[in-house]
Parts: sequence; structure tokens; C-alpha cells
Amino acid sequence: MAQPDIKNLVTEIARKAKKNSYSVMKLSTTIKNNVLADVAKGLRQEADAIIEQNKKDLTLAEEKKLSKAMIDRLMLDKNRIEGIAKAVEEIINLEDPAGQMTKMYKRPNGLKIAKVRVPIGVIGIIYESRPNVTIDAFSLSFKAGNSVILRGGSESFHSNMALSAIVLGALKKNKIPESALSYIPVTDRQSVQELIQLDEYVDLIIPRGGPGLIKAVTENSRVPVIKHDKGLCHIFIDAEYDTQNAIDIVLNAKIQRPGVCNAVETLLIHKDFKDKKAIIDALVNNNVEVRCDKTLQDLNPKTLPATDEDWDTEYLDYIISVKQVNSIDEAIEHINTHSSHHSESILTKDYKNAQQFLDEVDSAAVYANASTRFTDGGEFGLGAEIGISTNKLHSRGPMGLEDLTTQKFIIWGNGQIR
Amino acid sequence: MAQPDIKNLVTEIARKAKKNSYSVMKLSTTIKNNVLADVAKGLRQEADAIIEQNKKDLTLAEEKKLSKAMIDRLMLDKNRIEGIAKAVEEIINLEDPAGQMTKMYKRPNGLKIAKVRVPIGVIGIIYESRPNVTIDAFSLSFKAGNSVILRGGSESFHSNMALSAIVLGALKKNKIPESALSYIPVTDRQSVQELIQLDEYVDLIIPRGGPGLIKAVTENSRVPVIKHDKGLCHIFIDAEYDTQNAIDIVLNAKIQRPGVCNAVETLLIHKDFKDKKAIIDALVNNNVEVRCDKTLQDLNPKTLPATDEDWDTEYLDYIISVKQVNSIDEAIEHINTHSSHHSESILTKDYKNAQQFLDEVDSAAVYANASTRFTDGGEFGLGAEIGISTNKLHSRGPMGLEDLTTQKFIIWGNGQIR
Repeated sequence: MAQPDIKNLVTEIARKAKKNSYSVMKLSTTIKNNVLADVAKGLRQEADAIIEQNKKDLTLAEEKKLSKAMIDRLMLDKNRIEGIAKAVEEIINLEDPAGQMTKMYKRPNGLKIAKVRVPIGVIGIIYESRPNVTIDAFSLSFKAGNSVILRGGSESFHSNMALSAIVLGALKKNKIPESALSYIPVTDRQSVQELIQLDEYVDLIIPRGGPGLIKAVTENSRVPVIKHDKGLCHIFIDAEYDTQNAIDIVLNAKIQRPGVCNAVETLLIHKDFKDKKAIIDALVNNNVEVRCDKTLQDLNPKTLPATDEDWDTEYLDYIISVKQVNSIDEAIEHINTHSSHHSESILTKDYKNAQQFLDEVDSAAVYANASTRFTDGGEFGLGAEIGISTNKLHSRGPMGLEDLTTQKFIIWGNGQIR
Repeated sequence: MAQPDIKNLVTEIARKAKKNSYSVMKLSTTIKNNVLADVAKGLRQEADAIIEQNKKDLTLAEEKKLSKAMIDRLMLDKNRIEGIAKAVEEIINLEDPAGQMTKMYKRPNGLKIAKVRVPIGVIGIIYESRPNVTIDAFSLSFKAGNSVILRGGSESFHSNMALSAIVLGALKKNKIPESALSYIPVTDRQSVQELIQLDEYVDLIIPRGGPGLIKAVTENSRVPVIKHDKGLCHIFIDAEYDTQNAIDIVLNAKIQRPGVCNAVETLLIHKDFKDKKAIIDALVNNNVEVRCDKTLQDLNPKTLPATDEDWDTEYLDYIISVKQVNSIDEAIEHINTHSSHHSESILTKDYKNAQQFLDEVDSAAVYANASTRFTDGGEFGLGAEIGISTNKLHSRGPMGLEDLTTQKFIIWGNGQIR
């Protein structure tokens, strides 16, 4: 496709989505839930057709020699499609945030003022590989009253188109503008660059993918971006804490699922913690590569020396960096300097230190005496999440339905002038 | 100053502000209030010295032949300095948002989760002309626990430096890192461009000024921006409403202070409203230039014809555009298409139409039967405001102390793993 065509295509999609977004914003919860129920039903009915399209993607992926992990993420079968349908049904059961009043009060001049949650409008979601995002991201955003523009990765193109068709069918059946979901049918990178310039039509961009995608989007977008960036998470073992508990939590945070953003990457240990060796041994014995600073290197012959770079590295793997610190202040300073401000935990028996850590660590989720792995919309009780925001503004941490709305002020008067 | 020097200077200011911001974030409300009290005291004590520096700016302004209005905005005298000091004391009396818990709940696994307001960190504020912003913007941001980097306009440079010196004195007296306030002592535009690239150190940019500044900042910033942009506000007079009330509200919204963002710029009148002429006559008789669409042009010989451009123009002057509409739906569609999504009002006797307008107009503040001029932090009872956000994300409408914080999750566990 010639470049001007891509620009025109994306602009036209966004313009139309914005224009129709006002009628999507005012849909009742009942109608939105009906659409979602039809999406779930459609997924089950059309499972075979979806799988057929998915096979095209899998064939291409094998030709391109994508990694086994990548191919596994792409793959859809009946079970996975049933999982996607169930996730949609869970979103039906979540409370609709649009219309919730978060404040209401009367002013001395008689004006009644309410602050009310309303849909954001048009949300652009740029994502890679996993086709289930097509349905998840639409369902969650739409439940909050938003129109969605999706731009998925080239590797899942056929699957995404098949899944989008299910949504379009459900919208049509319920007489809702089909631009409530627009799928950009172009895998050229230029389509991403065009989309993120359209601040006139698009209210929010959510990139979901690797660091290359996040960087390209955040550095060039004129539309506000909420990014779901890396998680360089820390656990700090204070001077006193039960050794077995510490081992359980550190292992859970490192190896229960090492490839996710809330897994721990750096362990800080207070110099007075007596069982440093037990912690390091447990990691080594569970096949974790342990990269230690100088003070800890002799505790286990299988450890490797850490370099300065390690304190800034998100491994997403069976690797951990370990550093000894002289005080809780040093631990907090290390974290505030090197963390990606995602999730951090202190393991301590000391009441004062727990409070200090919770107060002073500047991250989205700060724990005392628990694994960092709980940073997740479901685990936090928010229901489904569209991701975990590493932004500080608008949404921080697990981003659920509520964060897919903005607020407006509504004012009832009876002739007031100023 | 050579360009690499500006880059180094701004980067170093921001790096230091970020580094010290963690100790500013944890200041108690008492200490923050002590600093603000010392700022107010310093302003009164040093009023003469401030006025002397201000005179330098005024002399330069006259040499540059700036407009009378511009020079008036620049001018500081004892009264105005007393006003600035009083505004600081009002901020002392506002509740500190940092530390407020907006949610707290216990999960089935025993984790106690709180969502708590915390300072954003480092806020860069780029502003023009009025020197009082130096104190207002610092005081409000600091009260919420933030460090502030200011970059004021060249025309108020000497005044801003004198005012910053008062703040630095108050910080020093209270043994707080002086980087809680950094004033960029360079008026070259490059300093703005450098500041908005520093997303590693700066958490939020707030531009306050004309459309040129807003555009330059939003289009190039890598730091999230909350803009305080134009207000193209509408009033819609429905088929039935008391004529005198309508005249009072329209005049108030247009001429009580025409140069502000919550003044009305476009009036929509339902075709069945009987006293269209009375409304237009009242505007004309109050020296407002009335630009009418075809259907209304014959009502008063002094009106001018409106062009398409008028529906997208913020006059900030004694000018208003007036359009007849056939229905409330047409009014809402016109507003959602042409508005800057700031403030809009419906004047109606009809219950259903009032609710429809409040529900469907996608603006920061939507009124029934009141003047748009109330969109203001003070009038809404939020206390002082740092501006009126035309963003949809994070903050929308009058932006007070609460919106100068972000939130984080705090989790108390007792050994939970996943």
C-alpha cells in the first residue's frame, strides 16, 4: 500500500470512530452487556472458522521461524477460545463505571455539582502477538463506553481479523455503529505512526508489547499514552525476617512465572540478615542464575559477579541480581533510583521499617511481607485489567474498568450568574 | 548562552530536582505549611525589593512597546504582593491530599490493600507574563509534596527571580532541599525544548500561556502534559426558557469577563424559542459584536453574518457567534463537534432535555441553567487551582490540589505467595 493511502485509511478510520463515539458513549449498560454476550456466543459458534484463520498465522510463523514461545502465544484452539469467551462473560459481570458519581455537593449559591465518570471516547490499542487481546481489549474498553481502534501485530493478522469479525457481527446485531470497533487492516509500521498523530480523533493510546514498540509510541505520540512498560521489581530482606518465609516469597516472586512484569529482578539484603546464604542457596538450587555484588560472592560458588548494568536490567528469566545494603535508607534509595516503579516488597519483622518502606518507595505497588506477583487486576480485586500502567498520571498499576473512564463535572443551576 | 550549555544547565537542574524529590515527597504537612507561611512572610517583608526588580521588567516592557494589558499583567505593587501572600495563606488552609486513602479493603487471601494519594514527584511549569504564577504554582504543587521546576517568560524575568528568591529563603530556613523549587534562569526558548525532553527526571509538564506555547509544548514533549488550553464555550437556549433569565445568563457568560476561558463564545438558540430578538438585542445593546447565521440575521440590523470559521473561533472579546438549531440533538452535535470541551450550558424548562444535555455533552463542565463562568476551582469549592485542564486524562476541568497527586497501591501482607 502506498504511504499516502495508509495515512488516508487510518485518518478516515479514526475520524469515523470519533464521530460515532458519542452514540457509543451513551449506550446503556444493558445494551453494552447484550453486545458482549453476543461476542461470547459468536466466539463459541465460530470457533472452527477462527481456528482456520489462526492456522494461516501459524503457518506463516513457522515459515518465518518464529520462536516456539512466540508460536505458542499465537496459537488458538477450542480451549483457548472458550477461555476468551469466558473472559468476556466476566466483563459482563463487572459493574459499569460510566455514570458513577464520585462526588456530589451543593455550593452556597445553590449550584449542585457532581463529578461523574464518563467514557474517555476513542481508545487506540497497539499490540503484538497474542490474538486474545483483540477481544479482551475491546470488551473492557467498550464496557466502559469507549470506541476502540485496534492495530495488532502482523504475526496474528488473520486471527485478529477473524476475531474482529465476531465483534462486528455482535455490534451489527445490536444496531450499534460498527466503528465501536475498528481494526486497522494494515501491518505496515506507518499505520502505527499515523494513528498516534491523530489527537483530534483519538483520546488515548495504549501500547502493549515489547520495549521497541513502547519506545516508538511514547516518543512520537501526540495522543496521550498510558504505557504498560517493564517491571524491574525489587524485594528487600530487612535485618530480621523469618528465613523460610523469605525463601518462599523470593522464590515465588522469581520463578513462579519469570517472564512477567511483576516478577522480582533484584534482591536487596540487609547486612545484618543472618541467613543470606540460605536465600542464595535456595535460588541456586532452583536453577536461578544469581548475580551477586562483591560482599555476597563467596556465599555460593555458583553465583556470578554482578556488574553495574545488572541493577538496571529486567531479566524476565531465571536470573536475579542480589546486593547487600547497610540500611533500609540505602535500600529505598537504590529502589527509587533503579526501579521501573512497578512493584517492590519489604520482608521485615520491624513495624517502623515496614511503614517507612510503604511510605517512601515511589512505585505503583509497594508491599510489606508478600510476593510482588500479586500486582494484577484480578489479584487486587479490580476484575479484568487492560494492563499494568507504569505511568504516574491518570492510571498507575493494574488498570481496570474505572481507569478506562474520565470524569466530568455536571452542574444543576436555577439561573445563577457570577 | 551557547546551546550545549542550556542543555547541560536544564538537565542538571532536572536531575537534581528528581534526586531530591524523594525527600520533598515525604515532608509532613506541618513542615510544608511552615515553608508556605515563611513564603507569605517573606513576600511581605521583601515587597520593596520585589517591586524594584519588577520595575526593571516594566521598563523593558515599555521599551519593547508591549501592550497596555500586557504591562498591567506584569505590574506588581504592594497590593498585588499582599494578594499573592494571602493566596499562599489560603493554600496553607487547604487539606493536604498526600496520604489520603481513597480505597482500603481486604482480599480473601488476607492481603490488606490501600490506594493512597502520593505526590507526583517533579512538575515542570512553563508560563508567560504574570509573575504571581511563580508563587501560586510553587505553593500549590509543593503543598501536595511535589518539587517544581519553573520556566517563566522573559518579560517577567526579574520579577520571577525575586519571587523565587523568597521561596528559596523559606526552603533554606526550614532545612528543605532548595531544589524543591528550581527556576530556570534562561529565557532562550531552547530551555523549554530541553525541559520537555527530560522524561527521566520530570513527571509532568503544565504549560500556561497562549496557543503558541501550548502547541510547542504538546507537540514536542516526551513528558506527559496537562494543558490548560482554550475555552470555546457554548450556551444553548432551548425552546422554552424565561427570556430575562436567558439574557442575564448570556450577558454574564459573555461580558462579565470576556477574556477568560470560561466565557461563552457561541450561542445556540432553538428555532421555537420565541424571544430570539430580545437576546440578540441585549447583546448588541451591551456592545457585543453579534455574528449570526442566515436565519437570524434580520432580527437586528447591527448583527454581522457568521462564517464557518466562527463556529471554531475563541474570541476572548466582545464578540459572539449565534446559530439557530432545530433540535436539542442538533445543538449537542454542534457542541461535540466544535467545542474545545471546556464548559457548556443549556437553558431550559424541560426536565428531559436538561438531563440529555448533561449526559451527552462531552465537556469538562456541563451546566443546566447557569452561567459557564463558574468553571473555576474556587467557584467549584476545590480551593485554589493550578489551571483548568482541557485534557481528558488524569485531570479534567478545574485542577486543584488533589489532581497534583498520583496514587499508589500499598499492600500489607503476612507472607502471602501466589
